Amino acid sequence: MNLTGQHFLGFERSGENPEYFTAINPATNEAFGVKYHVAGQNEINRALVKAEEIFTGYSEVTAKQKASFLNLIADLILEAGDQLIEICMAETGLANGRITGERARTINQIRLFAGLVLEGSWVEATIDTAIPERQPAPRPDIRSMLIPIGPVVVFGASNFPLAFSVAGGDTISALAGGNPVIVKAHPAHPGTSEIIANCISEAAKRSGMPDGTFSMLYDSGYNTGRLLVVHPQIRAVAFTGSFAGGKALYDLAQTRPDPIPVFAEMSSVNPIFVLPEALKTSAGSIAKAIAGSVTLGAGQFCTNPGLVFFIGDENTVKLPEFLGEEIRKSIPQTMLTPGIAGNYHKDVSHALADKNINLLMESAEASGQNQAKPVIALVSGAAFEQNKNLSSEVFGPFSLVVSCDSKDQMLRIARSLHGQLTASIFHDADKDLDDFTLLPGILKTKVGRLIFNGIPTGVEVCHAMIHGGPFPATTDSRFTSVGTSSIKRFVRPVALQDCAHSLLPPELRDDNPMGIMRLINGKRSNQS
Amino acid sequence: MNLTGQHFLGFERSGENPEYFTAINPATNEAFGVKYHVAGQNEINRALVKAEEIFTGYSEVTAKQKASFLNLIADLILEAGDQLIEICMAETGLANGRITGERARTINQIRLFAGLVLEGSWVEATIDTAIPERQPAPRPDIRSMLIPIGPVVVFGASNFPLAFSVAGGDTISALAGGNPVIVKAHPAHPGTSEIIANCISEAAKRSGMPDGTFSMLYDSGYNTGRLLVVHPQIRAVAFTGSFAGGKALYDLAQTRPDPIPVFAEMSSVNPIFVLPEALKTSAGSIAKAIAGSVTLGAGQFCTNPGLVFFIGDENTVKLPEFLGEEIRKSIPQTMLTPGIAGNYHKDVSHALADKNINLLMESAEASGQNQAKPVIALVSGAAFEQNKNLSSEVFGPFSLVVSCDSKDQMLRIARSLHGQLTASIFHDADKDLDDFTLLPGILKTKVGRLIFNGIPTGVEVCHAMIHGGPFPATTDSRFTSVGTSSIKRFVRPVALQDCAHSLLPPELRDDNPMGIMRLINGKRSNQS
Repeated sequence: MNLTGQHFLGFERSGENPEYFTAINPATNEAFGVKYHVAGQNEINRALVKAEEIFTGYSEVTAKQKASFLNLIADLILEAGDQLIEICMAETGLANGRITGERARTINQIRLFAGLVLEGSWVEATIDTAIPERQPAPRPDIRSMLIPIGPVVVFGASNFPLAFSVAGGDTISALAGGNPVIVKAHPAHPGTSEIIANCISEAAKRSGMPDGTFSMLYDSGYNTGRLLVVHPQIRAVAFTGSFAGGKALYDLAQTRPDPIPVFAEMSSVNPIFVLPEALKTSAGSIAKAIAGSVTLGAGQFCTNPGLVFFIGDENTVKLPEFLGEEIRKSIPQTMLTPGIAGNYHKDVSHALADKNINLLMESAEASGQNQAKPVIALVSGAAFEQNKNLSSEVFGPFSLVVSCDSKDQMLRIARSLHGQLTASIFHDADKDLDDFTLLPGILKTKVGRLIFNGIPTGVEVCHAMIHGGPFPATTDSRFTSVGTSSIKRFVRPVALQDCAHSLLPPELRDDNPMGIMRLINGKRSNQS
Repeated sequence: MNLTGQHFLGFERSGENPEYFTAINPATNEAFGVKYHVAGQNEINRALVKAEEIFTGYSEVTAKQKASFLNLIADLILEAGDQLIEICMAETGLANGRITGERARTINQIRLFAGLVLEGSWVEATIDTAIPERQPAPRPDIRSMLIPIGPVVVFGASNFPLAFSVAGGDTISALAGGNPVIVKAHPAHPGTSEIIANCISEAAKRSGMPDGTFSMLYDSGYNTGRLLVVHPQIRAVAFTGSFAGGKALYDLAQTRPDPIPVFAEMSSVNPIFVLPEALKTSAGSIAKAIAGSVTLGAGQFCTNPGLVFFIGDENTVKLPEFLGEEIRKSIPQTMLTPGIAGNYHKDVSHALADKNINLLMESAEASGQNQAKPVIALVSGAAFEQNKNLSSEVFGPFSLVVSCDSKDQMLRIARSLHGQLTASIFHDADKDLDDFTLLPGILKTKVGRLIFNGIPTGVEVCHAMIHGGPFPATTDSRFTSVGTSSIKRFVRPVALQDCAHSLLPPELRDDNPMGIMRLINGKRSNQS
């Protein structure tokens, strides 16, 4: 397709505002491609009016139609072929294998939601039938299910240009839930965004979805995002990115006359705890796994492990040495944007300037533009306990290895951590778990996902995945942004009391035409 | 039991602060009973430290133990017998039948949650088993379920001294979810609160629950509530009451360094739409039902209907006349507090001062202290459309009857309503629904519960009930505060990846010892 740099206001394309920005190749710092227009207030309004007007229409689309729509998006993304891969590589500095893999993940994710919608039980249909003869008052017939919440704003994330961007989990779960979506495209991959938006728009047209089901707006700054979050028609916000960005959007939404839910996935250092027996038996393989996770994708994953805890010191324990060896062999990679690369260098220098932090190892020097050099550093548990700032996220391939002086110190530090997306425990088969019985329980209160003998990167997209966690990992620990239950962010329950059978949606009809699992008078059944 | 006016700090009783308040009988304006101490910062901290310390312990109590604890609370409330009923009547001005009925509802509600916990499927256990041979990367074993969120503050509500107060739905759903609860007792029924708190505390002791599972603090002002909402140990807040109170707590929670969820059920006028054919055939019985709902419990229900819409005018349609006749026959009742009664009189006078609003009917004058005289007034649809304030809640037995000039006007008004707990449609069997096909869809976007041919008061406590709705009915439309799914307000999902089988909670074990319904590799099953 020919890129135009225009917004998608439903099926309308528009670029009436003369202000624009361009894509930048972070590997060369060169601008390339077309001019991407910055959205104007008028364009924002047109997209929102459409979304509001067709909300009821789209929310009443059948499960089968919605599943076809989603599957067609996946088909069209595959059909976009090499053009998508090439533009995405140029815009992000990510390698072909990574982008191709991420495309596969994105497509699987879309098909998983199509399957969820088609199967239908996710709506939590619940029926309590009438008991007319009950004393002192008859019981009415009450039937409830989850329904769409309304137009959703999705902020594309820079670090997953496909899986967490225009057709990523936020957009797809919101669409699957029956909500119109307005994407604020991330300016770091505008061409990638246009190709994907075109796939969604085209799929919507061909599947007969109403005009306004999907819109996408460009802006290189914050204005469009701000206007969207406070717009009266918007009913929910999804964001993946920095703590500063997510918290600002969250706070902004609270200034509305009617506050709306903001699901922001923001900040996590994904601590790893390596227990003593595991250190003895497997320090080499654990070091290899951790170093791989620290350096993967230039360390630009939400689940990048920023803290590694062990008991002992570098004289008694091999882990620091092995980790150092792995990092020494690693290779600097191009970061997503010049801004991200600049922040990484600044944050690493700042960390190493602390007199309690010792450089443990770094890779060879970077040779290209905006490359990040993997770095690990060592700090004592005592120094870590005294400086709260050491548990802040450094976005990139940096990790702080913390040598604890005792089990008590390790547990105390675990208790002091703030909310995280993940934590990991490396343990030997039995003894470690017997010796550290409290640790899993402590970490469970801190995280959305607790991993045993594994690294945090590699977020499986499945039904059981929870990619969330207590603040500041996210703004609402009651939800996940990955996996099928992420759809629950954008739906709300409604009850129908004594509703005429002809008005009931299929999910709540006596004959259960979709054959979904329902809770009927307290019993779960997929029968009618 | 002998009332003491002391707080419950876990199992400790305390009243060290000399500041106090007393109960007031709203039927006589007389103070009576013991002195109720106002909580001090030190007492608040002691309750919170206990809650935090035993959080993990209580969250790991087995389902069976938790169900026994809950059932014992219900038993002890019944055992409290006449003393509870008598004090509650004296503190609230509510009649014996109402309190006895509310006690039955409260006990049924507790037993419903005990059953939910015992059955166990509510945790949404989800298992995706490992696929070690998958390419390009093996799939890990991932298992997720809902776990407790942490210590919860519950604000007792004045209008349901049992069902929405100390052992009401908020406390019981939070305890059922595995969370310690700190109740801020409502000062309008402190003696009732002490008796109920004693039942919970005694049940906790006898069931072996840890000290700190339940606390209750008194305050006649706002300070204790404020300190609780911003306290670092608190993880969620539940409130039922006025818009001003709920929104203030919500906003306060956003000022925390770590914002926490506040579920406030606040404000609703519960509009009723009477359609033309129903008006023709059943105006008399509809008027009787609506008037009964407006005047029930002195109009002090969250689901009190404050707006009644019909098409036509009082010359062509009998509904206003019939409604007037019912209101004329109704009897003034004592309101819950002098403050509530004062506000009611002020709000009604203010409404009737509007030149577009005509008094339709009022009951005989009130004869006792703090009584509310039922009043209904009439306004044209045109005037209603021009004055947004007319859709504000008047807390008490007041309702505004709105005569629409057309179907279009009625639909336009329906579209303009803000969020509500409920809306009702009175319709004749078929024709009305055929003529007003858009109305149910419009109202569904506004409410938590849509009622057909029924009044909004009488909130059934069951699995399918949704007592919630878009802002300003609540602060989070994704949840309900009545019915078993209200437990979801106080839990969050956590995933365990490749967790040793010995560490898994029963809900996630391969052999499914509780026999709960689970989602395993995308299929729902209660098998192992």
